[in-house]
Parts: sequence; C-alpha cells; structure tokens
Amino acid sequence: MTHPLELVVILGTAREGNQSSRVVPGIVDAARNRDWKTTVIEAADHAQSATDGKAGDEAFRSQLATADAFVLIAPEYNHSFPGELKILLDRQQGEFAHKPVGLVGVSAGSHGGIRAVEGLLPVLYTLRAVSVLPQVLIGGVGGLDDPFEPERHSKQLDAMLGELEFYADALATARRRR
Amino acid sequence: MTHPLELVVILGTAREGNQSSRVVPGIVDAARNRDWKTTVIEAADHAQSATDGKAGDEAFRSQLATADAFVLIAPEYNHSFPGELKILLDRQQGEFAHKPVGLVGVSAGSHGGIRAVEGLLPVLYTLRAVSVLPQVLIGGVGGLDDPFEPERHSKQLDAMLGELEFYADALATARRRR
Amino acid sequence: MTHPLELVVILGTAREGNQSSRVVPGIVDAARNRDWKTTVIEAADHAQSATDGKAGDEAFRSQLATADAFVLIAPEYNHSFPGELKILLDRQQGEFAHKPVGLVGVSAGSHGGIRAVEGLLPVLYTLRAVSVLPQVLIGGVGGLDDPFEPERHSKQLDAMLGELEFYADALATARRRR
Amino acid sequence: MTHPLELVVILGTAREGNQSSRVVPGIVDAARNRDWKTTVIEAADHAQSATDGKAGDEAFRSQLATADAFVLIAPEYNHSFPGELKILLDRQQGEFAHKPVGLVGVSAGSHGGIRAVEGLLPVLYTLRAVSVLPQVLIGGVGGLDDPFEPERHSKQLDAMLGELEFYADALATARRRR
Repeated sequence: MTHPLELVVILGTAREGNQSSRVVPGIVDAARNRDWKTTVIEAADHAQSATDGKAGDEAFRSQLATADAFVLIAPEYNHSFPGELKILLDRQQGEFAHKPVGLVGVSAGSHGGIRAVEGLLPVLYTLRAVSVLPQVLIGGVGGLDDPFEPERHSKQLDAMLGELEFYADALATARRRR
Repeated sequence: MTHPLELVVILGTAREGNQSSRVVPGIVDAARNRDWKTTVIEAADHAQSATDGKAGDEAFRSQLATADAFVLIAPEYNHSFPGELKILLDRQQGEFAHKPVGLVGVSAGSHGGIRAVEGLLPVLYTLRAVSVLPQVLIGGVGGLDDPFEPERHSKQLDAMLGELEFYADALATARRRR
Repeated sequence: MTHPLELVVILGTAREGNQSSRVVPGIVDAARNRDWKTTVIEAADHAQSATDGKAGDEAFRSQLATADAFVLIAPEYNHSFPGELKILLDRQQGEFAHKPVGLVGVSAGSHGGIRAVEGLLPVLYTLRAVSVLPQVLIGGVGGLDDPFEPERHSKQLDAMLGELEFYADALATARRRR
Repeated sequence: MTHPLELVVILGTAREGNQSSRVVPGIVDAARNRDWKTTVIEAADHAQSATDGKAGDEAFRSQLATADAFVLIAPEYNHSFPGELKILLDRQQGEFAHKPVGLVGVSAGSHGGIRAVEGLLPVLYTLRAVSVLPQVLIGGVGGLDDPFEPERHSKQLDAMLGELEFYADALATARRRR
C-alpha cells in the first residue's frame, strides 16, 4: 500500500459502565505499533434512534469511507450483538464493501462474546465486507484490572491484524483497478 | 385456561415511515376474533438509548409480565433484525420465559423478512421463550395498499395463532403448578 | 406424567475415535437417577448415505416416536454440527414436534461446542421441537480421563434435565388433549 | 491473472432424485462463457461416512487445491444445509483459505434455499473463505422443466461470477506475494 493502512475501530456498545471500552486501548496500541492510522468510533457518540435510514449519518459514513480495514468490538447481550451496534451498521451505505473486518467479542462469562461475533457474520456478509479469522475473544472482563491481557490475547490479536493487512492490501489494489 | 389468553404484539421497528406497522391490524384482528386480550407494544414508544440494562424499563416489563403469548413483528434490515428491537428485548428480565412467541417477518423484497426472524431464534432461546412455527412472512410490503392480504397470509397466521394457543395453555398450567 | 419419562439421547457423531461418546455415560446416569427410561441412539449405527429422504429410517423413527424428551450431543466441527447428525435429523418425520430437546456441546478447545449447539437451533425450530436452556458445554475433552466432570458440569446438567421434565410433562398432557 | 480462472462447483447433496443437480449446467455454462476452467464435484461421489477426519479425502482435496474460486450449490433441508455437504467440507485441510465462494440455494418452496446458504456462512468463515454476494436463489425447482431460468437468475449469477473474479484475481496475486 502506498499510504499507511487506515483502521477504524468500532466500539459496539453504548451501555453506561460497559466493560468493552476497556479493551479498546490494547487494540489501538497494537495497530499503532504497526504504524497504522487508527480512528475509534463509539456507538454512544451516534444517535441510537432509528430514523428513516435513508438519511444516514454523515459523520459516521465519512469516517468509514476512507478506511482500509475495520475492527468491531461487540459485547454479547442475550447470545447476540448489542442493538445499538446494529442501528449504527444499518446506517452505512456501502462503505464496508470489499474491505476486511476483524471481530473482538467481549463477555463477563467464560466464552468471550463468541455468539455476539457469530451473529455479526450474516450482517457483515450483506455489507459485502470480508470477516477474517482469528477472532479475539475476551471473557471474564468484569473481574480484571486490565481485560486485555497480553499473554492471553496478543497472539490472536497479532494474527488478526496480520489478516487485516493481507486483505487490506490485496483489496485496496483491486478496488483501485476496478 | 381460566381467563382469556393475553397476547402481546411487539412492533419491532422504530423507523419513521416503516411499513411493518401496516401489518399490525391484521394480526390484532385475528387475535381478537379468538377473543384474546391483545396489547400492542411499539419499539418507537420506548427509549432506544442503551443505558446500563440493569435499570430495565418498568413500563415494558409490566406489559410483558402478564402475557401468555407474544407475536414479534420484525422487518429485515441487512439480513438481520432491527437494532431497536434488540435493545427492547435486552431490557426484559425473565418475562418471556416458558411462553410461546410467534414470528412475523416483513420485507420490501420477495423473501418476507425470513432472515430477520431466523436471527431472532438464538435470542429468544436465551430468553427461554418457545419460538413456534409456522412463521408469517410478508414480502413486497412497499407496493401494496394492504400488505396483510388475507388470501396470502391468513392460513399461516391462523396456524401460528393455533400453536400459540397450544403452548400458552400447556405452559400457563405448568407454570402455575411449579 | 403417568409413566416414567422416556428420554432419547442422540450421539451426533460417527467419527472414529470421537471423544463425544465419553460424555454419554454421565448423561445417562443422571437421567436414570431420576428414574427416567433412557435410550441411546448413535449416529454411527445409522447409514450416513443420504437417500431420497422420503423413505425415512424406520428404526430411528420408531425410537423417536415414544420419546417424551431428547438430549442431543454434538461435537463442533468447523464452527457447526457434524454432517452425520444432520443426515439423521433429516430422516425424522414429525417425531420431535412439541417435545423438548436439551443440547450438549463438546469440543477439544475451550468453548465446549458452543457453535455446534447454536447451529442446531434453526433445525430444531423447524422440527417444531422446544430447545431448552441451560446447555451443557464440555470443553477440553481430549486431555481428560473423564470429560464429564461432576464438579464442572453436574449443576448445568441437572438444571437442563429439570427443564426437560417441565416441558415433557406439560407437553405430554397437552398432546394427549389435542 | 496469468492463467484462466479455475472454478470448482460443488453439488452439495447426495440425495437420490435431487433437483439441485439440474441447476449445475446453467452455472457451468455461464462460467465457461467467461473462459474459466470449470470442475464439478458431486457430494454423491465421495463417501458420506464420517471417518476420523484427519485422514481426509485426497481426491477431494487435490481438486480443491488448485481452485481460484468456488460455487457451492446447497438445497435446503429443514432450514439448513445437507449433512453430506458438511461431511465433505469437514474434510478440507485449508484449501478454501483466502479464496472466494459463491452460494447457490435451491428449494422446492418459494424462498430458494435462503436458509441453507445462510447456514453455510459460519462454516465458510471458519475455513477462511470469502463468501460473496449476490447469492443465486432458485425456488420452485420441482415444477420446472429447467429450474435455471435465464430471465430470473442470469443477472444475479452474472453479478456473482463478477464478484468471484474480483476476489480470485486480487487474492491469487496476494497469495503468491505472501
């Protein structure tokens, strides 16, 4: 790529006191160590009311438009993703197409939000994004000083960022040629 | 059952100008023809902001508490359910448990919201509700004067209400015995 | 119920050397402690060839027909259930309808087959079965002398069997009345 | 690409008298019109017994290895994919990774196998394949002389093949560079 990779990290919960915001710094740090340009979007900064959907959300969409890759952070509520993340995703208008997305699940329990990220697969497929493996699953967030423990999660995160890089590079080139 | 069956119908979109609200009357009429007591909850009447989730939403929960059965109406947005429906469902605190739920999918396209209602299955499972068949799938809602066409949908709706009755009766008795 | 509850346990893998067979005894023992009549069906004992599907599999179906409740044991292969379990389930002809099903996931990794059992939800819904919570998720089966560890799994298994009993009783009565 | 694109089409049912085999020629013809080299794999030609899974299936895997892109044809049985397709996919050992897959759903009913192809998304994600849109959904196959009707399906099929080409080209180049 001829420019630094632009990564957009989306914090997919607007719940007060949520634990997922505590995993953002670990992800941003790892991306910056790769010299990626990183932007964080928080669902709480965007209106959660569901308006007609055609109007869109210009601020959100302009942040997506220049991204080369995405990381979605989704806590698991009732075996699926938060509604506010879905409301946000439903405002896109094609900005995810042909771009890779890494998935980070978060939960208080032991399974690390595995069902939240699985539930996003059909949505991301519809947006024509490419969901990459591995996922980063962060369980037991409530009881930890820092839920992003390097010894538990760094290897998976590094592999995920490597896959994002592979696809971002391949697809940016291909999108330009089209 | 010793009292009329109490049905709660949830309109699962808050989008302005949504078409799904137009299928509510057909469902309510069919339920009232069976002498069921019917209440309609609209997602738009409940705050869509995702607060801490533990506070809950007393108005919503008290309407759920006395229900014997539910019908969820869900339009399909990006191959899944609307975020505002998920936010609403995440505020329950056990009121769906051991009660039957019928699913009505709505879409502008030809598949009638089939993926919106499939996406609800793991969520309803987690709430310990019983999802019943058949579904009612209402496609092409945009171009119709009345999207609930008796000749297309009445047979499925009637079968769905029959299943709700079977489970409502069986489970109300069992819940009381517990 | 006027007769002992009849439970059918289905071992949903036919893979040689599979670990899932090792969790069967723990489940059967717990069911027998409740004085339930228990039958085990192994996918390996039924032809895995997919014939026309209308012919069915008389032996399998007659075992299902008298069941009041089911437990499905499914290892996770590639984030979903084994194909041989699906072939077996596709041979039913209504014998699961209005009966409860408990789900046991098995995996070598740490998540205990969580995605195998989630993948079964739409299938069981279509068969008109009632999937109950809690699930029993048994991870790390490869390295254990006995993968069914009472201290880890008994509480969940006991709660699952309690739910099966609740539904089996409620629905057997209702099916007879119909 | 410096060589003709190699497409592998997988017929994902082994059921006798299945209708899905009738949609294969329309897909193969469209691919050959693009001068792609096309191979058809039928699930029925591969043993459906689930052996230990580590042994694999050399014939199947060698056909996958040189592919640049895939089309999976899956009829819908009980709201999901056929078991024999899952058994076949479980024998892969990395040959789908970083390659695009197009999805063709088939059903006797009106929804064209939509739930069969949705059910494949988590499996293909795990295989590190890229599932592309649009899908081709072919409903009502039983009553048609030729279920692949050009006027109904050609536009979607052509768009799907275009997406396969976009990804096959971008990813083949990237895989070589790695």
